[in-house]
Amino acid sequence: MTQASQTIARLSASSVDFDQALDTLLAWEGVSDREVQTRVDDILSEVRARGDDALIEFTGRFDRLSVSAMSELTLGRARLEEAYHAISDDQRDALDQAAERIRAYHEHQKPTSWQYTEADGTMLGQKVTPLDRVGVYVPGGKAAYPSSVLMNVVPAHVAGVDDIVMVVPTPDGVLNELVLAAAFVAGVTRVFTIGGAQAVAALAYGTESVPRVDKIVGPGNIYVATAKRAVFGQVGIDMIAGPSEILVISDGTTPADWLAMDLFSQAEHDEDAQAILVAWDDAHLDEVLESIERLLPTMEREAIIRASLEKRGALIRVESAAEAVTLINRIAPEHLELSVAQPDAWLDQVRHAGAIFMGTYTAEVLGDYCAGPNHVLPTSGTARFSSPLGVYDFQKRSSLIQCSAEGADRLGRVASVLARGESLTAHARAAENRLKS
Amino acid sequence: MTQASQTIARLSASSVDFDQALDTLLAWEGVSDREVQTRVDDILSEVRARGDDALIEFTGRFDRLSVSAMSELTLGRARLEEAYHAISDDQRDALDQAAERIRAYHEHQKPTSWQYTEADGTMLGQKVTPLDRVGVYVPGGKAAYPSSVLMNVVPAHVAGVDDIVMVVPTPDGVLNELVLAAAFVAGVTRVFTIGGAQAVAALAYGTESVPRVDKIVGPGNIYVATAKRAVFGQVGIDMIAGPSEILVISDGTTPADWLAMDLFSQAEHDEDAQAILVAWDDAHLDEVLESIERLLPTMEREAIIRASLEKRGALIRVESAAEAVTLINRIAPEHLELSVAQPDAWLDQVRHAGAIFMGTYTAEVLGDYCAGPNHVLPTSGTARFSSPLGVYDFQKRSSLIQCSAEGADRLGRVASVLARGESLTAHARAAENRLKS
Repeated sequence: MTQASQTIARLSASSVDFDQALDTLLAWEGVSDREVQTRVDDILSEVRARGDDALIEFTGRFDRLSVSAMSELTLGRARLEEAYHAISDDQRDALDQAAERIRAYHEHQKPTSWQYTEADGTMLGQKVTPLDRVGVYVPGGKAAYPSSVLMNVVPAHVAGVDDIVMVVPTPDGVLNELVLAAAFVAGVTRVFTIGGAQAVAALAYGTESVPRVDKIVGPGNIYVATAKRAVFGQVGIDMIAGPSEILVISDGTTPADWLAMDLFSQAEHDEDAQAILVAWDDAHLDEVLESIERLLPTMEREAIIRASLEKRGALIRVESAAEAVTLINRIAPEHLELSVAQPDAWLDQVRHAGAIFMGTYTAEVLGDYCAGPNHVLPTSGTARFSSPLGVYDFQKRSSLIQCSAEGADRLGRVASVLARGESLTAHARAAENRLKS
Repeated sequence: MTQASQTIARLSASSVDFDQALDTLLAWEGVSDREVQTRVDDILSEVRARGDDALIEFTGRFDRLSVSAMSELTLGRARLEEAYHAISDDQRDALDQAAERIRAYHEHQKPTSWQYTEADGTMLGQKVTPLDRVGVYVPGGKAAYPSSVLMNVVPAHVAGVDDIVMVVPTPDGVLNELVLAAAFVAGVTRVFTIGGAQAVAALAYGTESVPRVDKIVGPGNIYVATAKRAVFGQVGIDMIAGPSEILVISDGTTPADWLAMDLFSQAEHDEDAQAILVAWDDAHLDEVLESIERLLPTMEREAIIRASLEKRGALIRVESAAEAVTLINRIAPEHLELSVAQPDAWLDQVRHAGAIFMGTYTAEVLGDYCAGPNHVLPTSGTARFSSPLGVYDFQKRSSLIQCSAEGADRLGRVASVLARGESLTAHARAAENRLKS
């Protein structure tokens, strides 16, 4: 059923082996093998036991930075502001605009405290409080993305988190001024130029110089992901991200060249990234393939894009728009581009997607940078149960209960019956103490 | 500084070694040792590979249930309804009232979809969707609590989850009718009488008979907790709970006998449970200790309570109410009882607590059963970053973006600058495609 193309697989949803082929295409498991696990465990215990000394040692070993004190691996707001002024006017302006839009969007997400009082005077409610301190991991080297700084930090800032600590490895001491400028704009309090599992350990346990945080967010390599999973419980973590993916649904209204570039923009991340386009018109699929093949040689990242499309990309022919909807909900894509004339009409039926980009003009990349919604999104089908990173990830709730004497009597009778049914008699007697005799 | 008491430690916050003593008291790490890990990994792979056959085999081995088909380990709504009619009128009435109150409270938690349109016609928003299917783990044997069924299932039902699957081990085939009745009241779709890591595996991967779910919630032993941690990512999970704890702040307005019973109701859960009372009046602390020692011999679970109080309990003397607040936020307790005359006045200063019980009449146990708020709460200090289980745990969000031609032009210019700053030229060109020329 797979028509072999040099460039990208073509599948038909009506083939008998389509289900199997789709499962294979989507399959992804971010496995940390036993060796990575052991190395990470060692690093975590070293940092936990020896604090700054271990941090300095690991940073010397992994990032080839020879320092004698943590102060040499620390940048304050003044240094971040310097970076903000050092970048080009265009870049500063773009960062400002992006941050402002992200901030405005996230303001809409703020949950609020609430309470209500019942007839007998009993009050029930929920109180929302920001986390005290958050750690943001920012990858160094090639994948150092200022946009990622904005997307991880701004929601924490909007949530009201007082202290936002960023860690970013700087192999060989190379600082990325754009990343530091983004940290300044977003509201980072201070930066430690450390990375890897050792940075995660420092944030989770605290050291003499690095304060313990309440939650760690941000993407990282397999060592970072493994470390985050290990410290989960000690601190909160965001989701463990898989490779980035896009599912484009096209009814033919968007130019094929635009669609090809939208697929490329996903594929250029890395070879594991996944770009899939679905349509119900063969001629349109031919057209998109033609665009892909024509435009591919013009891309700076041609090799990565080609590898990604070959390995994990697909053009899928469905019978109808309805079948496309079924496919969307089965894949639960991170990014869904509804490149159709009437995207509104689709919305009700889309149950699972991290972010939905509606209509011809809404390129997914606008969401990556500056539309406003977060670009940290659930990958690998986890949109079935996860949400975009948001303000709600940096706040938590406390239940409130205040019983009147009347309420304690009414509720105590119910509690007493249930507690005795569970053989928890201290529970029952604690309730019975407050009954009216 | 610790005045040794037969029954419970007495600490003073002004002692020089108090910080150290408190850290020791609070220390808790739920470690799965290498052996548990290996056994769980094996069970997970077996169920993943062999489905129902493996489930039947493990259930035979661990729960001593000899069955030949999964249908013998499956209970439908009709069987649950039978249980509902079989329990006593008092119990049925108590379950109904508790479920109704829990439902009413959780209705207040429902997040709503929202969107807004900017001047140039660009629409941004967020769409809230319930999960499709949820799995609820309910421990079997001694710790089979109907209240836990209500607390885990009702929020999912309120969230709009269509299919709520419950698993509960029934060692030697013993069913708990109260648990089944609670499942009926709460809205469980069907029950599988399986447990342990094998039940978690079945819910995470699906078998011929057990459908794959999107999220697994509910408490369990170390095997269940280890399995949940391992499948996290494949499915969503709730938090991994530690032992239950209470922190009572008392200004002396609540009778000492009531306070003692409130502490007992926490301690009777198990020997690792933690009950701490804080006051700034020595005479009052003496009084509470006297109540504890007098009432302890009258308790059915005296041995467990005694072990818990000895091992993990404490009466702490602070200098002032202000110092008590500091202690609250440092401990970030699961349950906080503000047994004080003016609990309202404390609320603003309490930053970290799972649930706050305000005033003399608000026994913590009312929250365990029927006040309305959830009794699944963050333990071991995780209230610093986690919330009570709620409707929001059974829904997820999708970002919405629909750019007008104007908006695509405006945003595309910003995205292009930032993408080129990140050397992602396919991103830049995808944005530039939509610019007005």
